[in-house]
Amino acid sequence: MTGQSPRPKGRRPGDSGTKEQILDAARDLFADVGFERATIRAIATKASVDPALVHHYFGTKDELLVAALQLPVDPAVLFAGIGTEEGNGRGAGETVVRRVLALWDDTDTRAPLLALLRTAVSHERAAAALGELFANTLLAQMATLADRDDASLRAALVGSHIGGLVLGRYVLRLPPLAGAAPDDIAGMVGPVLDHYLSGDLARPAL
Amino acid sequence: MTGQSPRPKGRRPGDSGTKEQILDAARDLFADVGFERATIRAIATKASVDPALVHHYFGTKDELLVAALQLPVDPAVLFAGIGTEEGNGRGAGETVVRRVLALWDDTDTRAPLLALLRTAVSHERAAAALGELFANTLLAQMATLADRDDASLRAALVGSHIGGLVLGRYVLRLPPLAGAAPDDIAGMVGPVLDHYLSGDLARPAL
Repeated sequence: MTGQSPRPKGRRPGDSGTKEQILDAARDLFADVGFERATIRAIATKASVDPALVHHYFGTKDELLVAALQLPVDPAVLFAGIGTEEGNGRGAGETVVRRVLALWDDTDTRAPLLALLRTAVSHERAAAALGELFANTLLAQMATLADRDDASLRAALVGSHIGGLVLGRYVLRLPPLAGAAPDDIAGMVGPVLDHYLSGDLARPAL
Repeated sequence: MTGQSPRPKGRRPGDSGTKEQILDAARDLFADVGFERATIRAIATKASVDPALVHHYFGTKDELLVAALQLPVDPAVLFAGIGTEEGNGRGAGETVVRRVLALWDDTDTRAPLLALLRTAVSHERAAAALGELFANTLLAQMATLADRDDASLRAALVGSHIGGLVLGRYVLRLPPLAGAAPDDIAGMVGPVLDHYLSGDLARPAL
């Protein structure tokens, strides 16, 4: 099943066809078995190419998922510097909300994101893979989460709240959310995300 | 366009056909112009029946929407007693989360709810109508929200957070949310909903 490429690396006539083959295989496997179980090796086997070629074209599995799902933004960029001084002194939660809203408020990125959200609710495994990628990327940026047993639960709470916000503002267009200024939403939701990221979940000081 | 029924009220052979006609018209109008603008009169006109017949069969416009979208539960029942002593002394937010999770954890109601959620992201106006119905019902039960200028914004924040939670736990099945006990989730998310319902949004004590 695994076909070693007989030719040296580099550009060649079949490149774009091979890339598409790998992306198709990746989409299928992410959808069928989820992100964790869809290994680069399994994707390469399904695409009938060498695993090294997958890495050569797409880098890490995270990057392959971003390409396979045609994400208009890399989560690594979205969450860069969250929870550090680069967050402009604001709480990490507020910065995350501002960046997410800016992406969705931009007409260039909104359409592909909407398409992705629609796909997500009908292709659950692929969507879950995406959720894992976002959560892992967020976790990697949050020093406050390092070494906490409940880090993935905290990331899931943050992610689900952001998902609901996007659903309410951009899909359902609930008037109070759709009409609110991004700054106001970030000011209200950001502190809640900070609470989920680093507060006492069992005994919230709300 | 408006056809007065020439016959007296009560059961008659054409009943189920007429009901379906009204439900079809309601679904179309909720989807086309949203909940507020889809009046009982407009729905009756579209279905070629008398408005009184719509009220006779379906009661209020809220109840008509519940029937038209085939909701497995009436939001009025879901939110009954929220924010009062009947909430068992818990915060309103925690009670709302418990009830929503109980509905989704019940295999009888989960399938129709999932179908509804999938419809929601592809039929935005109908979904928005549903969002308004939930928000209005919740608002009507919350004494803490009475007479507040920002009541609809607060309800939208609560609704979007609950929507995101459902998305993460039941659609994307993010492991930490999908595997958590309902009590634990209610304990973590409930206080946040209470904060959105009655806390100081501009200056959260988080």
